[in-house]
Amino acid sequence: MRLRLTPRDTSFFDLLAASAQHLVTGANLLGELLGADRPTRKALAKQLADIEHQCDEATHSIMRRLNQTFVTPFDRDDIYNLASSLDDCMDFMEEAADLIVLYKLDELPARVADQVQVLQRAAELTADAMPRLRSMSDLDEYWVEVNRLENQADKIHRKLLAQLFDEITDPIQLMKLKEVVERLEDAADAFEKVANTVETIALKES
Amino acid sequence: MRLRLTPRDTSFFDLLAASAQHLVTGANLLGELLGADRPTRKALAKQLADIEHQCDEATHSIMRRLNQTFVTPFDRDDIYNLASSLDDCMDFMEEAADLIVLYKLDELPARVADQVQVLQRAAELTADAMPRLRSMSDLDEYWVEVNRLENQADKIHRKLLAQLFDEITDPIQLMKLKEVVERLEDAADAFEKVANTVETIALKES
Amino acid sequence: MRLRLTPRDTSFFDLLAASAQHLVTGANLLGELLGADRPTRKALAKQLADIEHQCDEATHSIMRRLNQTFVTPFDRDDIYNLASSLDDCMDFMEEAADLIVLYKLDELPARVADQVQVLQRAAELTADAMPRLRSMSDLDEYWVEVNRLENQADKIHRKLLAQLFDEITDPIQLMKLKEVVERLEDAADAFEKVANTVETIALKES
Repeated sequence: MRLRLTPRDTSFFDLLAASAQHLVTGANLLGELLGADRPTRKALAKQLADIEHQCDEATHSIMRRLNQTFVTPFDRDDIYNLASSLDDCMDFMEEAADLIVLYKLDELPARVADQVQVLQRAAELTADAMPRLRSMSDLDEYWVEVNRLENQADKIHRKLLAQLFDEITDPIQLMKLKEVVERLEDAADAFEKVANTVETIALKES
Repeated sequence: MRLRLTPRDTSFFDLLAASAQHLVTGANLLGELLGADRPTRKALAKQLADIEHQCDEATHSIMRRLNQTFVTPFDRDDIYNLASSLDDCMDFMEEAADLIVLYKLDELPARVADQVQVLQRAAELTADAMPRLRSMSDLDEYWVEVNRLENQADKIHRKLLAQLFDEITDPIQLMKLKEVVERLEDAADAFEKVANTVETIALKES
Repeated sequence: MRLRLTPRDTSFFDLLAASAQHLVTGANLLGELLGADRPTRKALAKQLADIEHQCDEATHSIMRRLNQTFVTPFDRDDIYNLASSLDDCMDFMEEAADLIVLYKLDELPARVADQVQVLQRAAELTADAMPRLRSMSDLDEYWVEVNRLENQADKIHRKLLAQLFDEITDPIQLMKLKEVVERLEDAADAFEKVANTVETIALKES
C-alpha cells in the first residue's frame, strides 16, 4: 500500500499498449518472412525495420513523459523497465530478420519456425495484458504463461543449437545460423523480462 | 545515515545466504564435471541444472518478498541487484556446463580448470560474506578479494583466448570452446557484480 | 521541479568530465592503433589499457562518493547510469584494441576506421557536454548528434558485417574480425546510452 496523489497520468497505459501492439505486428512479419522467398523477405525485413522505428518512437515518448510527470501510475523504475524491455523484444526480432536477409539464409531449420511461433504467442499475450495493467486484473495467467513459453523457447533453442552443430559442417554457415537463433532466444528472454516486470508491479499493488 | 522503521525484515539475509550457498554447490559440480567422463558429465550437468532451478526459485522468493515488504534492511534496488547478480552467476555456470555436454567437448584446455577454480573460490567467498551482511562486518576483505579474483579470471580468459586461436585449427571446435570459455568469464564478471553491490550497500551503511 | 537542499556536491561534475576526457584519449589511441605496425600497436594497446584502468578508478570514485553523499546534484540513479555507461564506452574500446593485438589482425577493412572515427567524434562531443551538465545549457544538440552518430555507426556496422561474410573465406579470420567489429559497435551503443541518460537528466530538470 502506498500513498497516491490523484489524478494519475493514465496515458502511460495507452503508450505501453501501443508498444506491445507493435510487437504483435513485428512477430507476425517475422513469421511471414521465414516462409517467403528472397525478394519478399527483403521487403518484409524493411517493414519490420519500420515497425521497429515506430516502436523506438513510442519508447521515447514513454521515457519523455516519465521524466516530465510528477506522479506516475506505478513506480517510475517499473514503467522504465517495462518500456525498455518491450523495446528490447522488438530490437531482437528486427535484428534476427535483418540477419536472415543479410546472411542470405535461404534455408532455415524447422525449429527456427518453432522459435518464432513462441514469439508470436508471447507478443499476443503481452499485447492482451498491457491494457489490463489499468485495472490490475487477470495478470497472473499472463506472466505464468509467458514464463512457460520462455522455458519452451529455451528448450527449442538448446535442441536447435545441438542440431546445428551436428548437421552443419560449413563453419561460416554455422556462424550465421547460430547468430539468428541466438537473437530469437534473446527476444524470448526479453518477453519474459516484460512479464517479470508486470509481476513486480502487480505484487507491489496487491 | 538514513531513517529506519523497525523491525527490519531479516529474512532477506537468509534468502541471500541460501542463494549464495547454491553457488558453492554449483561451482563444485562444475569443477567435478571437467574431470569426468562423458556419461558422468551428463549426470553432473543434470544436477547443476537442478541446482540452477532451485536458485531460480530462491531468487523468485526474494523478488516476491521484496515487492511485498514495506521496509527492507537496505535499499530495495540493492537487494534486487544482489539477488539478480547471484542468479546470473548460477545461470552462466549452468550454461557453461550444459554447453560442455551439448558440444561433447571431451578435451578441454588446462586453463579452463583454472577458470573454474577461480569461480569455486569466488563462490566460497560470496557464501561466507552473505551472512555478514546482517552485521556489516568484515566485508571489505571479501569484495577486495573477489575483485582480485576477477582480475585473475580476466587474465586467464585472455591467455586462453590467445591459446585457442593459436592451437585450434578446426573452426567449429574453436567456436564451441570459445563459447564455453566466455560463459565462464561471464560468471566471473557476475561474481564481481555481486561484490560491487555489497560494497555499495556497505558504503551506504557506513 | 523537485526540492533540493543546498549546497549540492558539485564535484560529481568534475569526476564525470574527467571520465569523459579519458574517453577522448582512449578513442584517439584506438584510431592511432589502426594505422600502426604490430609492435607499435602493442605499445598503444598497453597505453589504452592504462587509460582504461584510470577510467575504472574514476568510475569507482564516483560510485564511492555517490554512496556516501546525501544530496546529489541529480537523481542518484542517473549519476550511477552516467558513470557506468562512460565506463562501458572505455571497456569496449579497450577490448577492441586488445583483440586486434591478440588476434594479430594486421589488415583491417577500411570500414573499421570509419567505426573508430565515429567513436572519436562521439567521445569529443561527450567530453564537451559533461561540463555543461552543471549549467544544463546546450545539451540538446549533444544528444541529438550522438544519436545521429549511433545511427551512422549502426549502418557502418551492418555493411561491414555483410562485407566480412562476403569477402572473408577463412572462418577463423572471420570470427576474429567479427568480434572486433562487434566490440566497436558495442562502444557506439554505450556512447548513445550516455547521451540518453543526459537527456533523461535534462528532461527532469526542465
